[in-house]
Amino acid sequence: MDTLRDALRVFNSERDWQKFHSPKNLAMALMVETAELMEHFQWLTQDESRQLPSSKKEKISEEIGDILIYLVNLADKLDVDPLGAAMTKLEKNRQKYPVSKSKGKSLKYDELD
Amino acid sequence: MDTLRDALRVFNSERDWQKFHSPKNLAMALMVETAELMEHFQWLTQDESRQLPSSKKEKISEEIGDILIYLVNLADKLDVDPLGAAMTKLEKNRQKYPVSKSKGKSLKYDELD
Amino acid sequence: MDTLRDALRVFNSERDWQKFHSPKNLAMALMVETAELMEHFQWLTQDESRQLPSSKKEKISEEIGDILIYLVNLADKLDVDPLGAAMTKLEKNRQKYPVSKSKGKSLKYDELD
Amino acid sequence: MDTLRDALRVFNSERDWQKFHSPKNLAMALMVETAELMEHFQWLTQDESRQLPSSKKEKISEEIGDILIYLVNLADKLDVDPLGAAMTKLEKNRQKYPVSKSKGKSLKYDELD
Repeated sequence: MDTLRDALRVFNSERDWQKFHSPKNLAMALMVETAELMEHFQWLTQDESRQLPSSKKEKISEEIGDILIYLVNLADKLDVDPLGAAMTKLEKNRQKYPVSKSKGKSLKYDELD
Repeated sequence: MDTLRDALRVFNSERDWQKFHSPKNLAMALMVETAELMEHFQWLTQDESRQLPSSKKEKISEEIGDILIYLVNLADKLDVDPLGAAMTKLEKNRQKYPVSKSKGKSLKYDELD
Repeated sequence: MDTLRDALRVFNSERDWQKFHSPKNLAMALMVETAELMEHFQWLTQDESRQLPSSKKEKISEEIGDILIYLVNLADKLDVDPLGAAMTKLEKNRQKYPVSKSKGKSLKYDELD
Repeated sequence: MDTLRDALRVFNSERDWQKFHSPKNLAMALMVETAELMEHFQWLTQDESRQLPSSKKEKISEEIGDILIYLVNLADKLDVDPLGAAMTKLEKNRQKYPVSKSKGKSLKYDELD
């Protein structure tokens, strides 16, 4: 992850693109890339989404790359360590959804109701 | 990243949440988390987004954690290595946007026009 | 639609919110509202999404209201007539997806592959 | 709006596309179209977004058409009247953001902090 971050710093600075990369703009770009990923799934059934042809998988893999690139760009601007943030959040989720209450039923999916 | 992936596998399987985690659903969840991140920036100017108060930065850090969690969950389902995908994409971008043509002007931002 | 647009103009101008309402920001707000709508569907099967309990339908109806509000706000800023734009696009789609070629199979869903 | 809804019913049923149009899928499609709209704004400053060249305005107008098409499709599936929903929501917003408290300052934008 640090290697990716460092490579992105060089890439952006060589092109003088830092000026476009406000956190606001990077959040928008991240969103647009995520929508491009989701677009591949929009008309599929859940089962179909579990059995993608390899041509489609390749395109989706590229979108995952794009998303990680913008996520690391944004996190770098904000001095956030993405892996650390994910581990912290996972620990929070462990408290919030204890196995005894969440197993099988999955509270979180009913919260919106 | 592998540590996070392994921890997520345990977390999801302990709660029997794999059944909800079709690639289609995970792509939607990823999208929703990304929108929650972007929401923090929607009314800010670009300058304001560069100088966030620390209380806001903390919340955004948590959203970054959420996004990485779902990205790793999705990539794991599809047998994609997110870091490898990002590195491959970065190399493609190096070809697509050579410094000589991209510096200062930034072709990619004019493509939509 | 014109009634809604006029009511929104008064609402925004009474609160002096026009300054926040650049097309860029309104597009972001529209996106965030759309994600809130989609969140209601993220863990449902397609069948479940066809048989929503009325409590959920009510919340979704509110999100639809939010989305239309921001869409009309944005279109008004850009001097676009949303209904006219939709009718024009529908006509384009009629050309692009003739019944003879689209029936049953649905070309458009395969385009991404 | 009713004219658009009726035209869409004919369009979809001629092509036998109703089977793809679960509310879950329509919510995803709506999201993807909204991201395509937002993409036009992602690298612009707010001022630039207020002064779009007419070529860009035309493309954005088409995206607005797409969004309204999917919004009306989805609302129709759920038996929701989009204009009624927007008017109801606007009335709620009037209560929630009284002019006396919202003018100039704009409470709603600080809520996330």
